[in-house]
Amino acid sequence: MIQKLTSAERAQQLATLKGWQAVEDRDAIRRAFEFADFNEAFGFMTRVAIKAQEMDHHPEWFNVYSKVEITLSTHEVNGVTERDIRLARFIDSVTV
Amino acid sequence: MIQKLTSAERAQQLATLKGWQAVEDRDAIRRAFEFADFNEAFGFMTRVAIKAQEMDHHPEWFNVYSKVEITLSTHEVNGVTERDIRLARFIDSVTV
Repeated sequence: MIQKLTSAERAQQLATLKGWQAVEDRDAIRRAFEFADFNEAFGFMTRVAIKAQEMDHHPEWFNVYSKVEITLSTHEVNGVTERDIRLARFIDSVTV
Repeated sequence: MIQKLTSAERAQQLATLKGWQAVEDRDAIRRAFEFADFNEAFGFMTRVAIKAQEMDHHPEWFNVYSKVEITLSTHEVNGVTERDIRLARFIDSVTV
């Protein structure tokens, strides 16, 4: 069974990511993205979707035009795990 | 300049759509969708994205795994217009 990261582990991992922050009211991390337009935003989402499916670990996300907001949490344990960090790291790798 | 639908027009159009409802706190319409899994949900989103780009009229949407929630409104007039109805009708045409 996958384990939640401790607060110290989570803080340590967040420091290695780009712009991800802890969500206030739940054990999850979030980052907001802004692209040039919808084409670029949805292209990004498509790359993340394919990776998420491969990892069998999926984001919660909102999009309007050039903006995307992604929240990551591991539903099975209701908190942030290594899987979220790995997906966040991939997401960072496909953004500037 | 595109015009907002009147309440009567909007009600009449909503009656011809599948499961779209007026949003309570703003002039917009919304529908929730549930698919078999993420592959099906994101495949649906991709069809809608391509159509939205062609129409130059984009949704606000949220996805988590097999669930998608779509809100439509025309930002230029801050309300529901014929463009929203047309996009909703396309969305209905690609869902059961």
